[in-house]
Amino acid sequence: MVTFADRLSTRTRELGHPLCLGLDPYLERIPEMFRGRNEPATVRSFLLAVLELARERVAIVKPQISLFERMGIGGLEVLAELIEQARSHGLLVLLDAKRGDIGHTAMGYAQAYLSPNGFLDVDAVTVSPYMGRDAIEPFVEVAAAHGRGVVVLVRNSNPGADRFQTLSIDGRPLFEVVACSLAGFEARLMGGEGWSSLAVTTSALAPDDSIRIRRCLPHALFLVLGYGAQGGGARGAVAGLERTPAGYEGGVVNSSRGVLYPPGAISARGSDWEMALSAALSRAIHDLQGV
Amino acid sequence: MVTFADRLSTRTRELGHPLCLGLDPYLERIPEMFRGRNEPATVRSFLLAVLELARERVAIVKPQISLFERMGIGGLEVLAELIEQARSHGLLVLLDAKRGDIGHTAMGYAQAYLSPNGFLDVDAVTVSPYMGRDAIEPFVEVAAAHGRGVVVLVRNSNPGADRFQTLSIDGRPLFEVVACSLAGFEARLMGGEGWSSLAVTTSALAPDDSIRIRRCLPHALFLVLGYGAQGGGARGAVAGLERTPAGYEGGVVNSSRGVLYPPGAISARGSDWEMALSAALSRAIHDLQGV
Repeated sequence: MVTFADRLSTRTRELGHPLCLGLDPYLERIPEMFRGRNEPATVRSFLLAVLELARERVAIVKPQISLFERMGIGGLEVLAELIEQARSHGLLVLLDAKRGDIGHTAMGYAQAYLSPNGFLDVDAVTVSPYMGRDAIEPFVEVAAAHGRGVVVLVRNSNPGADRFQTLSIDGRPLFEVVACSLAGFEARLMGGEGWSSLAVTTSALAPDDSIRIRRCLPHALFLVLGYGAQGGGARGAVAGLERTPAGYEGGVVNSSRGVLYPPGAISARGSDWEMALSAALSRAIHDLQGV
Repeated sequence: MVTFADRLSTRTRELGHPLCLGLDPYLERIPEMFRGRNEPATVRSFLLAVLELARERVAIVKPQISLFERMGIGGLEVLAELIEQARSHGLLVLLDAKRGDIGHTAMGYAQAYLSPNGFLDVDAVTVSPYMGRDAIEPFVEVAAAHGRGVVVLVRNSNPGADRFQTLSIDGRPLFEVVACSLAGFEARLMGGEGWSSLAVTTSALAPDDSIRIRRCLPHALFLVLGYGAQGGGARGAVAGLERTPAGYEGGVVNSSRGVLYPPGAISARGSDWEMALSAALSRAIHDLQGV
């Protein structure tokens, strides 16, 4: 079976960069030209236009489910449509849902997100490790059956995560203990292109930590957070990724606000907005390629 | 303002027991008499009947969002209807969503669940601490503004949680470090009846751990997991709660499957099913009162 990791690695090699485009709809930052009859309609037309511009230029997009859920059923319907549209464009979709539950409940989520008839049928989903391995196991099981991916929160880029995830367990930071505990899942989701569909979050603001995580998980894909608007630079973002002649692989670097809402774009119209967004995409891509 | 903790404490005192009824819909265990034209319809008629029987007998119900989300938009519509119905019956509703995110995203969830015009307007919601304090802060902020509650995952009852949450941080288990870090939130959500609307999960299978958590958080409500079908007894469940002449307070003890799906009820019909469910409720209530 061709796995999530296989498809992602192949596509990032073709494109020559590891940028992942985060789809975080903030209503107050969406240009006037996309305003619809209600919030979901505005988000829908904005993000459909974004997908159209990004479809040939990035391998993967990452919608943030909470920002759709906030709008209720109408928001989730828009999310479902965007996911379908993205996948029909050939984009991979990573749903940032940070789910974490056990047994039947986790299996409920896993089937909702990672199986062909699921509620939101995506290529990979983020999950939280706080409830232990049995909260991750059902996601791995469904992912293995359908060639999907599981992204476990290991190291995050917010200040609170700096404090919590670096708590010392017998001299080792908590995030490293979590990372090393995932080795069995990494093996089970190993693909044919050298990478596992067991992925983990890392922080562009903590490159040394990414290196430590890489030692535990040599084949896990990284979802690198904190790059761009959150203050992380390209050099920190590629820590623990593998430099090849075709560019970095072994993970993707997320940028959401930095690309979606470039300076001045809120008042731009028509092709001016398209140019602004396209330029923001190019800046991020060149920045990551230039390291 | 009358807080979540105030309302919950007042009502559990009136009823004389701390049982929380978990609403976990498992299709294959729902009696034939509730079968509808599709999964959401079946779950809807089953749980509306459960609410009707439980409305005068428990203070609070806890729907598990993943088991509704699994059914897609139709499932979430049923969940929204059940929440509204439960609250119009005078029941408090704790949404088991285990959300955990930061900044705008967490605020999105907090507004979706804990504000009067939210997508699923409930009395309290469960959140995960893995991303640190800034993942909890927005929930506390919205809860404080609207008299709602925030239930932080601290100690869970599944085997994987036993291993992860007891990792030793300088000689103290991780769950205790998390619990003690919540003291500021506990103070901010303090109510007028002696309890805080900052609540934490504890495990009926780990009563010693509940006592440790209580030392850190003297006023936090407990959501006790693992009682009943998961193997925890009443004695373990009430650890860390306060015994008063009116019964235990300072938390609620959840039972889902043990009450919803009593032996033989799957094939019962009409008043036989009502009697079976009512008897299961009585058993759990008496069990908790008898400690």
